[in-house]
Amino acid sequence: MRKVFHAELQSIGEELIHMSELVAEAMERAYESFDTADTELAQEVIAGDAKIDFLQNQLDERAIDVLALQGPVASDLRMIVGSLRMSASLERMGDLARHIAQLARLRYPQPVVPEGIAPVFREMAGLDVQIARKLGELLETRDLQFAREIIALNAKIDELHAAVFKAVADPSWTENAPTTADVTLTSRYLERYGDHGVSVARKVNYLVTGEWDPAATEL
Amino acid sequence: MRKVFHAELQSIGEELIHMSELVAEAMERAYESFDTADTELAQEVIAGDAKIDFLQNQLDERAIDVLALQGPVASDLRMIVGSLRMSASLERMGDLARHIAQLARLRYPQPVVPEGIAPVFREMAGLDVQIARKLGELLETRDLQFAREIIALNAKIDELHAAVFKAVADPSWTENAPTTADVTLTSRYLERYGDHGVSVARKVNYLVTGEWDPAATEL
Repeated sequence: MRKVFHAELQSIGEELIHMSELVAEAMERAYESFDTADTELAQEVIAGDAKIDFLQNQLDERAIDVLALQGPVASDLRMIVGSLRMSASLERMGDLARHIAQLARLRYPQPVVPEGIAPVFREMAGLDVQIARKLGELLETRDLQFAREIIALNAKIDELHAAVFKAVADPSWTENAPTTADVTLTSRYLERYGDHGVSVARKVNYLVTGEWDPAATEL
Repeated sequence: MRKVFHAELQSIGEELIHMSELVAEAMERAYESFDTADTELAQEVIAGDAKIDFLQNQLDERAIDVLALQGPVASDLRMIVGSLRMSASLERMGDLARHIAQLARLRYPQPVVPEGIAPVFREMAGLDVQIARKLGELLETRDLQFAREIIALNAKIDELHAAVFKAVADPSWTENAPTTADVTLTSRYLERYGDHGVSVARKVNYLVTGEWDPAATEL
């Protein structure tokens, strides 16, 4: 019985790792479609998000089955409930990658953001992809060093997000209003993706250490 | 044992209702602070969000305790897992109300959005508050008519959200870029609040009927 149970727990862990890989890839490809105005690639990312949603539902069903059949206690129980939270964050990361691809598709064949500010977004998207990849490593190894790195990467995203708003408020900003709106939303999506990554990292930290402080800026 | 268990389940339900009341009030007051440039009221909303976060943590802990102590099965189990999802959505609704109040505080003593577009946001915020109040009634009565009404209210919010982007793209829009960015974010926050309300409504529908179609636009 315990053996089956641990196999189930391990499956849940593997599904979370798989989801983190898919959301890393989704953001990588979404940003490429955005950066190169590649509407076919954007379309693939948009269609691919359904798979991430499906995996979340599957993981949740498995978690409910484990709760029903095995009656887990204490730390195992927290692990399962934590997995439900993590799968929800990962699913949202997939949605945000999809939003980036949807902007690329909406503005095609024009680029969504002006060339002057594109490098900032390229950097933000790159940091997002790094966060998702490190989530996979964190989930795999439970080495909290990855969680600390994720928090540091997200702090850089927050700085870039603030820099975007500063650029928009600068008198030298001469873009039209729809472009300003697109720039604002793009920055918001890229920033939220990182926040969800941090949520997952904090959840793993909590499961490993038993300590939880949602207001902490570090682990 | 069953008696204690059902008392616990009822407590979880009451806490969800309480959260829905708090997030309705949070959005109502956040929007008032935003609409009247009342920085003190904005500050109260911002500070008050910690209570909503606290309630979510408390509800989650209670749910974990119930899972650990009682080993619930079948529909009760789904109810508890569903509650965890609902509390997460309600917590995010509180965050979004806080974001509205933060914009009010940031721009004080100026209003955040120009008077010309303010009525659209007033209507969106009013719809958001109605959604949160109907969630309370839905959770209390399990009458799915409220869920259908929530979905209809959210459809109106989506229309208004689209109208904001249309207004921003119109040649008659002459606002400066920071105002355009604020208008974009405000619309996004108000729209997301409604989406989370719909998520909770769908979850209740699923728990009552056992049917789930996350892609459906109606119940």
